[in-house]
Amino acid sequence: MGKKYIYLFTEGNAGMRDLLGGKGANLAEMTNIGMPVPQGFTITTEACIKYYDDGEIIDPALEADIYNYMDKLEAISGKKFGDKNNPLLVSVRSGARASMPGMMDTILNLGLNDEVVESFAAMTGNPRFAWDSYRRFIQMYSDVVMEVGKKYFEELIDELKAKKGVTLDTELDADDLKELATQFKAEYKSKIGADFPQNPREQLMGAIKAVFRSWNNERAIIYRRMNDIPGSWGTAVNVQEMVFGNSGDDSGTGVAFTRDPATGENKLYGEFLMNAQGEDVVAGVRTPQTIDQLAEVMPEAYKQFTEIAERLERHYKDMQDMEFTIEKGKLFMLQTRNGKRTAQAAMKIAVDMVKDGVWTKEEAVLKIDPSAVDSLLHPQFEAGALRKAVPVAAGLNASPGAASGAIYFTAADAVKHSKEGPVLLVRLETSPEDIAGMSAAQGILTARGGRTSHAAVVARGMGTCCVAGCGDITINEKEHYLTVGGKRVNEGEFMSIDGNTGNVYIGVIKTIDASVSGDFGTVMQWADELRTLKVRTNADTPEDAAVAVRFGAEGIGLTRTEHMFFKEERIPAVREMIVSKTEAQRRTALAKLLPMQRSDFEGIFKAMEGRPVTIRLLDPPLHEFLPTADADIAALAAEMGLSFEELKSTVESLHEANPMMGHRGCRLPVTYPEIAEMQATAIIQAALNVRAETGINVEPEIMIPLVCEVKELAFVKKIVTTVADKLIAEAGSDMHYKVGTMIEIPRAALTADEIATEAEFFSFGTNDLTQMTFGFSRDDAAKFLPEYYTKKIFENDPFQRIDQTGVGKLIKMACELGRATRPDIKLGICGEHGGDPSSVEFCHRVGLSYVSCSPYRVPVARLAAAQAAVKG
Amino acid sequence: MGKKYIYLFTEGNAGMRDLLGGKGANLAEMTNIGMPVPQGFTITTEACIKYYDDGEIIDPALEADIYNYMDKLEAISGKKFGDKNNPLLVSVRSGARASMPGMMDTILNLGLNDEVVESFAAMTGNPRFAWDSYRRFIQMYSDVVMEVGKKYFEELIDELKAKKGVTLDTELDADDLKELATQFKAEYKSKIGADFPQNPREQLMGAIKAVFRSWNNERAIIYRRMNDIPGSWGTAVNVQEMVFGNSGDDSGTGVAFTRDPATGENKLYGEFLMNAQGEDVVAGVRTPQTIDQLAEVMPEAYKQFTEIAERLERHYKDMQDMEFTIEKGKLFMLQTRNGKRTAQAAMKIAVDMVKDGVWTKEEAVLKIDPSAVDSLLHPQFEAGALRKAVPVAAGLNASPGAASGAIYFTAADAVKHSKEGPVLLVRLETSPEDIAGMSAAQGILTARGGRTSHAAVVARGMGTCCVAGCGDITINEKEHYLTVGGKRVNEGEFMSIDGNTGNVYIGVIKTIDASVSGDFGTVMQWADELRTLKVRTNADTPEDAAVAVRFGAEGIGLTRTEHMFFKEERIPAVREMIVSKTEAQRRTALAKLLPMQRSDFEGIFKAMEGRPVTIRLLDPPLHEFLPTADADIAALAAEMGLSFEELKSTVESLHEANPMMGHRGCRLPVTYPEIAEMQATAIIQAALNVRAETGINVEPEIMIPLVCEVKELAFVKKIVTTVADKLIAEAGSDMHYKVGTMIEIPRAALTADEIATEAEFFSFGTNDLTQMTFGFSRDDAAKFLPEYYTKKIFENDPFQRIDQTGVGKLIKMACELGRATRPDIKLGICGEHGGDPSSVEFCHRVGLSYVSCSPYRVPVARLAAAQAAVKG
Repeated sequence: MGKKYIYLFTEGNAGMRDLLGGKGANLAEMTNIGMPVPQGFTITTEACIKYYDDGEIIDPALEADIYNYMDKLEAISGKKFGDKNNPLLVSVRSGARASMPGMMDTILNLGLNDEVVESFAAMTGNPRFAWDSYRRFIQMYSDVVMEVGKKYFEELIDELKAKKGVTLDTELDADDLKELATQFKAEYKSKIGADFPQNPREQLMGAIKAVFRSWNNERAIIYRRMNDIPGSWGTAVNVQEMVFGNSGDDSGTGVAFTRDPATGENKLYGEFLMNAQGEDVVAGVRTPQTIDQLAEVMPEAYKQFTEIAERLERHYKDMQDMEFTIEKGKLFMLQTRNGKRTAQAAMKIAVDMVKDGVWTKEEAVLKIDPSAVDSLLHPQFEAGALRKAVPVAAGLNASPGAASGAIYFTAADAVKHSKEGPVLLVRLETSPEDIAGMSAAQGILTARGGRTSHAAVVARGMGTCCVAGCGDITINEKEHYLTVGGKRVNEGEFMSIDGNTGNVYIGVIKTIDASVSGDFGTVMQWADELRTLKVRTNADTPEDAAVAVRFGAEGIGLTRTEHMFFKEERIPAVREMIVSKTEAQRRTALAKLLPMQRSDFEGIFKAMEGRPVTIRLLDPPLHEFLPTADADIAALAAEMGLSFEELKSTVESLHEANPMMGHRGCRLPVTYPEIAEMQATAIIQAALNVRAETGINVEPEIMIPLVCEVKELAFVKKIVTTVADKLIAEAGSDMHYKVGTMIEIPRAALTADEIATEAEFFSFGTNDLTQMTFGFSRDDAAKFLPEYYTKKIFENDPFQRIDQTGVGKLIKMACELGRATRPDIKLGICGEHGGDPSSVEFCHRVGLSYVSCSPYRVPVARLAAAQAAVKG
Repeated sequence: MGKKYIYLFTEGNAGMRDLLGGKGANLAEMTNIGMPVPQGFTITTEACIKYYDDGEIIDPALEADIYNYMDKLEAISGKKFGDKNNPLLVSVRSGARASMPGMMDTILNLGLNDEVVESFAAMTGNPRFAWDSYRRFIQMYSDVVMEVGKKYFEELIDELKAKKGVTLDTELDADDLKELATQFKAEYKSKIGADFPQNPREQLMGAIKAVFRSWNNERAIIYRRMNDIPGSWGTAVNVQEMVFGNSGDDSGTGVAFTRDPATGENKLYGEFLMNAQGEDVVAGVRTPQTIDQLAEVMPEAYKQFTEIAERLERHYKDMQDMEFTIEKGKLFMLQTRNGKRTAQAAMKIAVDMVKDGVWTKEEAVLKIDPSAVDSLLHPQFEAGALRKAVPVAAGLNASPGAASGAIYFTAADAVKHSKEGPVLLVRLETSPEDIAGMSAAQGILTARGGRTSHAAVVARGMGTCCVAGCGDITINEKEHYLTVGGKRVNEGEFMSIDGNTGNVYIGVIKTIDASVSGDFGTVMQWADELRTLKVRTNADTPEDAAVAVRFGAEGIGLTRTEHMFFKEERIPAVREMIVSKTEAQRRTALAKLLPMQRSDFEGIFKAMEGRPVTIRLLDPPLHEFLPTADADIAALAAEMGLSFEELKSTVESLHEANPMMGHRGCRLPVTYPEIAEMQATAIIQAALNVRAETGINVEPEIMIPLVCEVKELAFVKKIVTTVADKLIAEAGSDMHYKVGTMIEIPRAALTADEIATEAEFFSFGTNDLTQMTFGFSRDDAAKFLPEYYTKKIFENDPFQRIDQTGVGKLIKMACELGRATRPDIKLGICGEHGGDPSSVEFCHRVGLSYVSCSPYRVPVARLAAAQAAVKG
């Protein structure tokens, strides 16, 4: 084989994460530092990549080597694979470089067959356990390896329970389970057309292949896209000796964190189930006991576990998320990894770790996932409203934040209705298939499952508020309603949930915005000390501007003047301007807009208190301000005193085949210079007024959009400077202002050296730049991009993360060309990418002066900028 | 002043064309070689540029210097400017680096005023001539300098003629003209609010400013755009002592070419008018005599002129276009320049010049304007049809070619109706204002004017067929009809004109295509010997392919498969494919299209006889194949057996906000691989069939459009190669094929190194690349681009000439990146720019392997490629 594709746990270590995956590397590390780990080996991520390169085939040499390592595992365990006297049973689990909980497949109890199960029953003296293990294995293998749906097997269980007149699985005895195993094998044969494989080697190869394959199942692809994990990494496969938490009442399995993952409190936190396998905890089917209760049930094991937990946190220098199993009183560690945590917990842990001297401030800042910060900024219930509200139920406070919304009972319904307003997804329990619905919902409410259930883990990752395991509600999934405290709530009716307390309410509760203080404030202060990239905000109103300042914005990178044009009291004047037949008519209409625009800008300048403010001239095509349906045109025509035909013909003459690339941006003032004149007048007059009134040193930055050629910029700039210089001179003021441009058209980036002769600053409009660099209309691409993810052509939405290869090349080029012409040119970005952490890092690397993003993304950008500075 | 802005004719020479303009440089050159030239001076193009840089103001230092040079001219002429005893009169004329006939302004007889005219009358003993000169000057000055319309003055002339009961200007006597001068001055005062300037210096400065200003009049800007003349060049101004061809019957003025500009025949060719000023000849108001007749009228002057003409052609080594005036028997040369000629003449002259050893083949090829070649390829009347046709009138064969079209009497109507079909522009005489209409028309017919009239010169320049001076037709411009031979032909009815014979017909005459032979063939053969760039054609049918081969195409660079989809008998299957709900339904519909596509490709492969053929997979968005109006949807739904709602909902679901950047190109097979499968099958089967049937070695090149990312290309390529390899293997063939891509999205150019790992060839789709690099939707930009020309932001339509600064930078980058990955990669261009000479030169410079253009542009591209090779 040449390359080594398999490592025993004794051969690896935590530094080999890229090769062994996170799970494999940590199992090896724990083995090396002498912790009780069921032994096994890891098939590397490189083997997975080779599997795909070879056309989804396992190389015979690798297969041979796998058997070779099984031999070694037999030697270590003293058991034999497929042997009926002393059988070795194994688990086969995925494990990628980055944790992808629940996204890929796992198979337990592998090695059982019709013979082995019998001797296993005899050997353990527990036939019920042996047969239960076998039927679970058949079920899991059929589902995961052969893709026979789980539901066929669940139906058989239900039938048997009905026949026996029992309701719980635990009421089935060994004979029942043996009967089920027989039925399951028959079901397998009827679906697959072959007998259930009795050869453990065949089982093993099937399971390994299934794990490789699961790297590219749909939910794994979605998860990777959401979490920026490259598809090229591949997953490792861990083959590990089974230990059984379901061996009896002296056995159990659990999951624990070294600190509270919701609050960050420095206290062991977790859950366990007696006489259960790990999947039972994670799936959230039974509500588990807290880890403290283990001290009472099994004091010895508890003591050993707390020592191990402390040691692991010291060893890894971070909060750990651990899985363990107790088999007949003996503790085994099955996994450890850095624990996912809420943003609130991340902040507290960071501050505590720095206080304890474990982390430097730089390390602390790097440890925090900027995307999670978002959740700290999400609304909470308004205290007064909350005091008056009476909870109808309480569940587990699984993910912080608060939300009100219309309830829906399926992921698809939640996605659909999320377009109409806020929704809550209500499920018995969630599963990876629900991920799109969870992402669309403002909040998630489940009736079953604990804080480590799927719903809780995923919701925390998304920064979405979640109340889990709320047993007080009864859900009728089929008829789409729930009952709680004797009341029925139908699909579409409103409820509210509080992810901080776990309380559940009927109706809407008023929410308020979050603020940056406490541990969060401390961490953000460190971030500000470390970063060099400035963070501005995109804000069109004084209110937005004030929120952004509260979140630490250092200026406005983009004020979109057209948003002001759409206001109800203004649009008549805008429309009057558009239907004007002469320049004089147009000027009359613009004169009506002038005082409105001026007062907008005054408000913004005041709110920003002297911080820089970039105002973009009118950008959208004029037809956006007119209706298109005949009925609306008729109504408007009547209102404006025009004939229907006249207005209709204006609407038709303004129609564009591709409005995105039409008559908009600086192309408007090239045709109608008086529009730019009015806007420049409003900006400069507002700035002069605010300076005169408040003494604030306003220096407006006027931004000309959609420039593709320097002469075009020069033409519009000349309109602006003529107006501005005249007004400033008339006011006898010494006020400065800047005129710059958006770089949002490829040609502007390509000719940035020429453009910089006129532009005093560049602001990269990465939304449009991405559209034109890719040739994607953002509105239309939503229809075909999903196929691009499925077919692994794209891994990310280029409208969310800057495409560094293509768009990034243009940005770099423009920065270099711009600086060559004008070394002190200000460079910023005001596309939506300005709030995306990986894009912020890119902006830092290419040396932009600032990023600008929506107010709620400002803290995210501050943190990402600090991380970029620390890394760079 | 520092810089020298003015040159006496004795100070300049022909090499100073950039500074002095063509006219000024040649006046200086003729002066230097001792020819009779009325003396004067030239104000340089740099002075014009400075005039614009200074904000359209003449620097006082320049003004002083102009007076200084007037003093020198007074000394040379022995006359005095504004002196009533011995007045110096001058002409003020524009003269740019490139000839722009009739586009800018001229003022004659400058220096006349109320006093001077009296003494001028006395001095010349010809009061009628003096007053005629004065009233002409007032009229010209008012029009050109003060922008009072000519028509006001023409009305006054008409009134006076009516009052006197005469019809011709020549019937007005000295007193009438004196009276007119008085009326003209009053008209001037009423329009301008000031007296007509009596101070010759004021007249002079006004005239010079007007010439500078005329550089940027609308028709000059249009002409420059049509002829690739940069706006930054500016015009020179020539101030020259007047000589008078209208001094009496021993005077005259004329225009002549050293060879026939229509046929190239080596024989003096021209026209003159006795007792006339130059403008009378050019304006075509009176029909002049041929130059031969001058030998009879004024043998001495004729002899001198023929000697000068021969000397000038030898001196300039090219056919000359000369203007001369005879004042009281004395010959003066007013201009010489290389003569414009028809493409046919250009070919004959080139072959003759090479034969005579005057030019090398390289020089000969460089001398020919590639755009003019086009006219040689324009249709002629089919000989049989022509024999049967009876001409209703005959005019001058002013520009070759033949055309049938609906007649229109204004430029605006011609432009408007040219969208519906071929049109002929019919005018009494044309003027520069008609240029857009002339450009839109297939042919031009005028009732007045000679071969050097405006209509004739411009038509030859455009390669449009023209019959001029057709006195047999009577035009009613007001009521939009003409009468000829007693028949009335209304606007919109068809006529035919033969630019080769001058014959005019009623109705349509069948035309046939031209061919490449004779002198044209010889020149094209030289071009082929010299060029390195290959020339292919864009062709979608065997017929187009055959035409292109006849014109020298060396392959097909682009076959658009969608054009085949639109055919009436196919579109039902295409629509069936689009409305399919399942892959199986789609495959059924595609199976119907397969044999049709296959037979298309077979026809094309046969027509191309083994030359390379590049076939592009389906490109447009699917909604282009469906109707949008409800009535059409209803009709189609009925036809297809669908409900209206069902089809309407399909149409709506396919609607796109920006279809140009929507679900098209390679994005279609990403969603529906079976479409690419069908097309690949059709291409490969067709190639195999043609090879089997004819033995032609077909090697199809399959082109995947709209790629922006290498993985996207890899995905679609895989579909193609899977099908192709299987078919070729099944046929037991060793046929080769290539898979490549369009580079038409900026990101493809930016990542061309990655794309080249999959693509075996690149073809630059410069139409879309221009759209996306500029952010211009071509359909929509037509509405706002005219403002860009008016405001001098753009000088050229980037969809006609490659924008070398922006788009060109991407192309160069893509070539370099592509070659770095795959040194032998084939690089071509298949946008419409492939037939534009300056773009062809660019393609040669960046090292493309071929350009591909429409069949009729192939010879143009061959010649342009040769010129690029000679220059490079």
